Amino acid sequence: MPRDSKSRTSDPQNISLTNESSSSERPSHFVENALWDQPSYYRVLRRSHPANTIVGVRGVAVGGTELTIMAGPCAVESPQQLIAAAEHAAAGGAHLLRGGAFKLRTSPYSFSGLGEAALKLLSEARRVSGLPIVTEVVDEESVLLAAAHADMLQIGTRNMHNYVLLKQAAATGKPILLKRGMAATLEEFLNAAEYIMAAGNDQVVLCERGIRTFSDFTRNTLDLNIVPALKQLSHLPVITDPSHGTGRRDLVAPMARASIAAGADGVLLEMHPDPEKALSDGYQSLDPDEFTELVSDLARLAPIVGRTLSVRGK
Amino acid sequence: MPRDSKSRTSDPQNISLTNESSSSERPSHFVENALWDQPSYYRVLRRSHPANTIVGVRGVAVGGTELTIMAGPCAVESPQQLIAAAEHAAAGGAHLLRGGAFKLRTSPYSFSGLGEAALKLLSEARRVSGLPIVTEVVDEESVLLAAAHADMLQIGTRNMHNYVLLKQAAATGKPILLKRGMAATLEEFLNAAEYIMAAGNDQVVLCERGIRTFSDFTRNTLDLNIVPALKQLSHLPVITDPSHGTGRRDLVAPMARASIAAGADGVLLEMHPDPEKALSDGYQSLDPDEFTELVSDLARLAPIVGRTLSVRGK
Amino acid sequence: MPRDSKSRTSDPQNISLTNESSSSERPSHFVENALWDQPSYYRVLRRSHPANTIVGVRGVAVGGTELTIMAGPCAVESPQQLIAAAEHAAAGGAHLLRGGAFKLRTSPYSFSGLGEAALKLLSEARRVSGLPIVTEVVDEESVLLAAAHADMLQIGTRNMHNYVLLKQAAATGKPILLKRGMAATLEEFLNAAEYIMAAGNDQVVLCERGIRTFSDFTRNTLDLNIVPALKQLSHLPVITDPSHGTGRRDLVAPMARASIAAGADGVLLEMHPDPEKALSDGYQSLDPDEFTELVSDLARLAPIVGRTLSVRGK
Amino acid sequence: MPRDSKSRTSDPQNISLTNESSSSERPSHFVENALWDQPSYYRVLRRSHPANTIVGVRGVAVGGTELTIMAGPCAVESPQQLIAAAEHAAAGGAHLLRGGAFKLRTSPYSFSGLGEAALKLLSEARRVSGLPIVTEVVDEESVLLAAAHADMLQIGTRNMHNYVLLKQAAATGKPILLKRGMAATLEEFLNAAEYIMAAGNDQVVLCERGIRTFSDFTRNTLDLNIVPALKQLSHLPVITDPSHGTGRRDLVAPMARASIAAGADGVLLEMHPDPEKALSDGYQSLDPDEFTELVSDLARLAPIVGRTLSVRGK
Repeated sequence: MPRDSKSRTSDPQNISLTNESSSSERPSHFVENALWDQPSYYRVLRRSHPANTIVGVRGVAVGGTELTIMAGPCAVESPQQLIAAAEHAAAGGAHLLRGGAFKLRTSPYSFSGLGEAALKLLSEARRVSGLPIVTEVVDEESVLLAAAHADMLQIGTRNMHNYVLLKQAAATGKPILLKRGMAATLEEFLNAAEYIMAAGNDQVVLCERGIRTFSDFTRNTLDLNIVPALKQLSHLPVITDPSHGTGRRDLVAPMARASIAAGADGVLLEMHPDPEKALSDGYQSLDPDEFTELVSDLARLAPIVGRTLSVRGK
Repeated sequence: MPRDSKSRTSDPQNISLTNESSSSERPSHFVENALWDQPSYYRVLRRSHPANTIVGVRGVAVGGTELTIMAGPCAVESPQQLIAAAEHAAAGGAHLLRGGAFKLRTSPYSFSGLGEAALKLLSEARRVSGLPIVTEVVDEESVLLAAAHADMLQIGTRNMHNYVLLKQAAATGKPILLKRGMAATLEEFLNAAEYIMAAGNDQVVLCERGIRTFSDFTRNTLDLNIVPALKQLSHLPVITDPSHGTGRRDLVAPMARASIAAGADGVLLEMHPDPEKALSDGYQSLDPDEFTELVSDLARLAPIVGRTLSVRGK
Repeated sequence: MPRDSKSRTSDPQNISLTNESSSSERPSHFVENALWDQPSYYRVLRRSHPANTIVGVRGVAVGGTELTIMAGPCAVESPQQLIAAAEHAAAGGAHLLRGGAFKLRTSPYSFSGLGEAALKLLSEARRVSGLPIVTEVVDEESVLLAAAHADMLQIGTRNMHNYVLLKQAAATGKPILLKRGMAATLEEFLNAAEYIMAAGNDQVVLCERGIRTFSDFTRNTLDLNIVPALKQLSHLPVITDPSHGTGRRDLVAPMARASIAAGADGVLLEMHPDPEKALSDGYQSLDPDEFTELVSDLARLAPIVGRTLSVRGK
Repeated sequence: MPRDSKSRTSDPQNISLTNESSSSERPSHFVENALWDQPSYYRVLRRSHPANTIVGVRGVAVGGTELTIMAGPCAVESPQQLIAAAEHAAAGGAHLLRGGAFKLRTSPYSFSGLGEAALKLLSEARRVSGLPIVTEVVDEESVLLAAAHADMLQIGTRNMHNYVLLKQAAATGKPILLKRGMAATLEEFLNAAEYIMAAGNDQVVLCERGIRTFSDFTRNTLDLNIVPALKQLSHLPVITDPSHGTGRRDLVAPMARASIAAGADGVLLEMHPDPEKALSDGYQSLDPDEFTELVSDLARLAPIVGRTLSVRGK
């Protein structure tokens, strides 16, 4: 029985690139310029592009030999908080600084981010720390603002299926960090990346961030199985987000280590200068010392899986 | 362990409407105009509005004693197909005609709808059949176009979390058909409706359309349990979509009957004049005879649950 | 990708009954008497037995035109409680009395039932009320004891995969009430029934009782979709358990109505003379008045779906 | 809303060991010797036993500094197959040999193992290779036979809730390898281990083997998140089974590496001398060369997580 909107070509290795339909079966001129029976996706596949894609984010290479650490607070809250986070991130070994300016919140009454003010703070934090900036976009306006300030645009889990937003983000030419939808199959995830590539932007990083299951000791179930499965099928870099993936500060470090061991190209970590006071997601944020120790662990792990992680900090 | 973005107030019956936070704990002037610790949602709750909300769609009342039947093809394909569908729908007892002009497709290469041409066809079909029109919107442009032609705007399952779209659709003042996200909790579903109501539009109909589970004999798992749970908590009308909910034509009729027996205010049904030739979702579409027979069954069932369904057709 | 232990013949309609393997490919004499490449299941299928199977439980027919109501407390607690429950069940229209003598409990320290004493009480309750008895079995000893006192043996959700127990219960010749495993696919459920039939017992009633999903407003997600799917594929009677299926007393009545509307042959209901004082599952048990009202609703619903339910009580 | 049979004490850190109930509220003498309001589990918890439990399997320590590798074929098929597997396992660095004599199969017509003949072969394989034996038990008879031949008894995922079997296996005094049920919560898993410990056997190893989710690119979803969560809560050793956990030979090595990086005490691997000819699960079995290479990887990884793995083979 087919899953929702799943491609009928269920084995990605056997996708036919041939258009097998004859137009004579088509109902009318109304659909004459629709595309028929195209493969569901192919640009993202390794057989279209055997070598690993390396995504460049203002000089930082994601998907090469060097692992990538992205870290920072869930939300930009204040200059003090962000600058402190950026300095700790740089000192601890991060390559990119993350920070939310626009937050998708379940409730219309929750704090939804500081918007452009946060983007300006992020620019300032970049100047101070030297770290390129990744920030989430949620609509056309935020895409335009973020493109003017940030170095990489993140599409969140709730927007993986928001194909309009994918195209708007793609059109900026900025590299895109695409998070897996919380109930997305592997094929749907690759199709979302295909939307970005079909819009002319091949700078896409895939990010596993936890799926919805019956299991209730974690906020989500970080599905590391998808890391080697994606690396095999696709040439795009793959990272994980163990902070959202588990929702538990005590599980972030072991699951980050496991991500790298499974073949991930990097990790995205929530780190806050003072997690107890974080406006959102403090219970899953590392503090600076935990972050520094984790990066050091990952650096020792890297050569085991044929990677490097040069802790630049101290 | 908290679910993703779940409100910390887990029991909706005990939501406090009081703002319990003192601003002195807040970190800085950057967040001074954010709303703190508001209840996650309350406008959608029955305790805010004890009577059932009745949503009016160009003269058709949804949520009153009379059950509502919405029917039509997944996608508008051609004038012939749509007019035939509209006539069958009206003859068989439908109150509203559904038809897709803008389709969210998993693959960027799939047929994504005829757009404005389809909306004009839907207007023509309304003129011929007398049935008001419900159609899905996927972005700002489609919202504006659909608002000019259709009578009710549908937010699809992939967009339930697209709060920007919810607000754009709400702003048209048109009644909204809001589908549950395929991995949305009951609370997330009600929060999405709260976004629409908070934007000033209280004409919202909730629609259960199947969730993602391990179970693989159906395309999705239609979760009828949410129907009585929503009816109890909320004053908004609740319908189901057994076509997408099961993905199997042979299960549509029994699950439509079960929906009404569980307390639903109506059903949304895929019906195609010739399902074998449908461009999308033909395997889950009823043909006109099956549709007519099902509506007749539902009409006999209605009084058992204190409802009416006057088969107007023949 | 294959599910756990799923038959390789994924379409039950296309099962080949022919043994296609040649023994020459087999590795050694060690496996010479194993059965190769048999169909995974066929005795349970409607194409092996087109007519509905009617299961007889001490004179009560399950699976015929008349719907079957099974009701009673989760656990047998005392003579007073059980006799009161039996009298209320009979008066309210039940055909069978349920009551647990042996309970599978998650914790080794929870109340695990009164055992043989409960079986004797159930016999006494049958004498007083005239209702045949259904009770759960959990191991060989309980099978032997229950076979001596009860009229139908229930296999619980945690034991659906306990094939040893299935065979032991089958061997008693008593009719079997088989509950779906909480994560069992439709095929695994039918295979479990096939174990019982292959052991020579064709008196099997299938019972949907809720599956494990991400959804958290119910204890389980009662999956009514499986009712019409099973009725189509199999000749065995199908009932549901909305008490365990939802875990919420307020959802039991609507989901019981929905079950019958979906085509179920009956329902299994937890009913306790005083739910507030129940030793287990009180929060999902109906009280006698709620039970009587629900049966009366179902009796009015029955003719809509071509069934009867003669309320014998008053 | 409570999960099925979940303890009401949801935070294991706050379990009260005090019996808070007064017997005066109890309904009758029938339940006077039942245990009331005991904690759901405590013997398995680290706060009952702060040090790691080290389980001894005929001289092999599981749960100490040295990681444990268990490997072998899904099913014992023939002397040639098993002896070859045992020799490859020993040469490649395994500490224990696994092999199935009794198989729980979804269909009553599938190959269910060679039974006692397989146990005798396993004894012979132990003599040849020097590796202690772990084998699955499925009922009382298999428990007694396996206890006479094997060194560790495995309880499979379908039997995690089979408390009768847990007690029978516990009573042999043999160490127990307990697999997580495919839809079991963390609490249910720990409760199953508590059954074994409450029966007087504290030699329990927990094994994550994949859960049922919507995700369909793997046979199951190996949930590595539970590894650090269990290690924190419990003193028992924790291993994983990436072969069943993913069902894909190509994902076994990366997920085995990830398991160790997440803190697992070892891995259970399907390895077959000739996977293409395996009678069951060949598509998820490593061949001897893949196995040897993986163990070598794990040996290099071990010191990064403070463990050792001395490849004894060559």
